[in-house]
Amino acid sequence: MYLTLDDINKLDYLYKINLINSVSGFKSANLIATKSKENISNVAVFSSVVHYGSNPPILGFVLRPSTVIRNTYDNLKETGYYTINHIHEGILEDAHHTSAKYPSEISEFDKSNLEEEYLDAFQAPYVKGCAVRMGLKYVEEYHIKANDTLLVLGEIVHLYIDDHLIEEDGFVNLSKGKTAAINGLDGYFIPVNHTRMTYQRPKKD
Amino acid sequence: MYLTLDDINKLDYLYKINLINSVSGFKSANLIATKSKENISNVAVFSSVVHYGSNPPILGFVLRPSTVIRNTYDNLKETGYYTINHIHEGILEDAHHTSAKYPSEISEFDKSNLEEEYLDAFQAPYVKGCAVRMGLKYVEEYHIKANDTLLVLGEIVHLYIDDHLIEEDGFVNLSKGKTAAINGLDGYFIPVNHTRMTYQRPKKD
Repeated sequence: MYLTLDDINKLDYLYKINLINSVSGFKSANLIATKSKENISNVAVFSSVVHYGSNPPILGFVLRPSTVIRNTYDNLKETGYYTINHIHEGILEDAHHTSAKYPSEISEFDKSNLEEEYLDAFQAPYVKGCAVRMGLKYVEEYHIKANDTLLVLGEIVHLYIDDHLIEEDGFVNLSKGKTAAINGLDGYFIPVNHTRMTYQRPKKD
Repeated sequence: MYLTLDDINKLDYLYKINLINSVSGFKSANLIATKSKENISNVAVFSSVVHYGSNPPILGFVLRPSTVIRNTYDNLKETGYYTINHIHEGILEDAHHTSAKYPSEISEFDKSNLEEEYLDAFQAPYVKGCAVRMGLKYVEEYHIKANDTLLVLGEIVHLYIDDHLIEEDGFVNLSKGKTAAINGLDGYFIPVNHTRMTYQRPKKD
């Protein structure tokens, strides 16, 4: 299939969002959880969490245009804190259900089998049972003019990882946590088996 | 394992980059290719390509601090064009080798078995044999103050996808292309088998 930008713009809406959401490649599968000042918790699936740097440890994620409901954003701006929790095989359906648009006064934890857990006096809830869980402090945001989205950056201030995932050199074996990867809007994989490559240097002639 | 920000900051460098590069979850595996005005092509592996929107079709990726060699960035700024090509099982080792730091006068296509291909008069080269290939036009960039990285956004102006990957509703089945996903700095998976979920609506009480 070959499409130009014009062809893409003319596609049927649902076909287009399925197609274009697939072409960036595999995406991370995370639950971002927050709690409002009124003590209402919120949890939502995000496929846009991405590594920005290790030193300091910074992760980013992308939020939809300002015209739609964004409880995650409202809470983290109000409090400064949120958690990122890896989605795994055991919670795929509950995790995906958090994409339903609930009003802000309803907690998705009450509408699914996901359980909230509070650790080390952190303000935002973690999702019980996830092999990798992080407490983040909001750092900054960028309004993306190209399509009116928002990039939010946060620093990892607490990090919890199930011991059996961690290898000697710090590599976290995501397959041992049955961690999910997302394809498109709604395809969930549990990747198994990997090849680790070595550090690459230029080849001599 | 439980680490605070202070603990993370004190980790040994290599352990820290392996660990923190793993905790965002699975990452996309792409080759970004460019060609300078002097006609020297460049191709490099990126794990930070992420979907920003479908309408218009916008992808972003993250570049390292301005203090390091960035041939990809120099070329795309000079010409306005670049390609994104999905890494697949057949080219894992050659794709990973492009992480070696070659000087700008050397093309990684000459130092690996990756083959460049020019399609529809597009200025930048595509990587032959990739099931999903996109020609992008540079749109804008954001300097990320938190850690001196750069977010580059581009619009898909040409899109090539092997027909057998595309399902009736536009979903691109990445496993049919043996598309790779990245774990950490150097772990490559070829995910197989997935579950497609349905569109979620709030549950009635």
